[in-house]
Amino acid sequence: MEIEVAVVKVGKWATSESGDTLEMIERPRGGFSFVLVDGQRSGRAAKAISNLVARKAISELAEGVRDGAAARAAHDYLYTHKGGKVSATLNILSVDLASSTLVLSRNNHCPIIVITPDDRLWLLDEPSEPVGVRRGTKPLITELPLVSGTVVVVYTDGLEMAGARSSRVFDVPAAVRELTAGSNMSAQQLADSLLEQALALDEGRPHDDISVLVLRILDRTGDGVRRLALSLPL
Amino acid sequence: MEIEVAVVKVGKWATSESGDTLEMIERPRGGFSFVLVDGQRSGRAAKAISNLVARKAISELAEGVRDGAAARAAHDYLYTHKGGKVSATLNILSVDLASSTLVLSRNNHCPIIVITPDDRLWLLDEPSEPVGVRRGTKPLITELPLVSGTVVVVYTDGLEMAGARSSRVFDVPAAVRELTAGSNMSAQQLADSLLEQALALDEGRPHDDISVLVLRILDRTGDGVRRLALSLPL
Repeated sequence: MEIEVAVVKVGKWATSESGDTLEMIERPRGGFSFVLVDGQRSGRAAKAISNLVARKAISELAEGVRDGAAARAAHDYLYTHKGGKVSATLNILSVDLASSTLVLSRNNHCPIIVITPDDRLWLLDEPSEPVGVRRGTKPLITELPLVSGTVVVVYTDGLEMAGARSSRVFDVPAAVRELTAGSNMSAQQLADSLLEQALALDEGRPHDDISVLVLRILDRTGDGVRRLALSLPL
Repeated sequence: MEIEVAVVKVGKWATSESGDTLEMIERPRGGFSFVLVDGQRSGRAAKAISNLVARKAISELAEGVRDGAAARAAHDYLYTHKGGKVSATLNILSVDLASSTLVLSRNNHCPIIVITPDDRLWLLDEPSEPVGVRRGTKPLITELPLVSGTVVVVYTDGLEMAGARSSRVFDVPAAVRELTAGSNMSAQQLADSLLEQALALDEGRPHDDISVLVLRILDRTGDGVRRLALSLPL
């Protein structure tokens, strides 16, 4: 098996930086975790918030703390530091090789989209609260087996709000359904296509930070090499 | 300008995991840092060590600590925890947007290879000590301007020791020179080609963990999207 992960990330039009933060860390007992945080508002203030939350979650995960506890710690940290006045959405996606599962942790009203190996689309969309504002906030956690054919799409609300200015709303699950139906899109192609559609709806000027994370499990025996690639416009 | 980074990583033949650890973190004042650690020996024991060192360096960098201090902290931490009995090599490569420089930090006998925009190959190969064994160990730090045309290659000693069993030694700088001469290789292609040559010398059975990190600065105006891709064989 092989796991492919792709992330695309763009900032709100005319802001110097995205208020979303994406961090990745190797899990000490095997596997990887991705942490995606969308800080309240946009630009520098949002970035400072999302950085703080992501850093806290990552530092917990790096020490072997389980995902649910890391999300709770990130909430408590933000809640304590900002007195419950600032919110952020938090998603953690982990490939946990110790339990051979995908662990999806969600503090975000945006759903997580899962395509199962038998090609069914499943929305993780139970009501869920952002971190930072209400004491005792918990993540919603879903654990899935590491099975080839699985696709997971996680995103920040800039994606589903694309086009909102023109009242054409982006139906992200429908787009994922259409893009994956019958085709063998790579994680990178799927992430790029979703972002492209959102940017088209926003007429090339995103009205919010947009981040999309796609994970795909493949039934492929590769060359045994781990690869990481990053491209960063300055 | 655009920055491209590619990492390839493979474990010693017949070990369950690579003893090298590569972590990436966003710098709170802008930019990214990559931390590459090769723990003494191979397999699980080496992995535990490299994880410990990388985690310490990453957690410092995430809080805005400067690279030289982060490398010193990682050394002190390993030295303290293991009583000076365990060594690891440590490289930090940072794209520092606050100072608009590349910061290269080296605690590794392996050189760092730099191709300058005027196409000259430069070796950062002053004698340098690994972390963990001698009190007061310091990194060697080189700062370069963020200029398009720059290429940086960082690697662990598994790369240059490839072929050592058959007494054909891998001349990494010569290979980089040849691969980049006149061609416009992407960071990913360069990293893949170097690994491929090393694996050929090791007859497909690497006799040590091998990691290669390539950074390239391009004079290109892209679409303003940050992209991250990971592929992970299980």
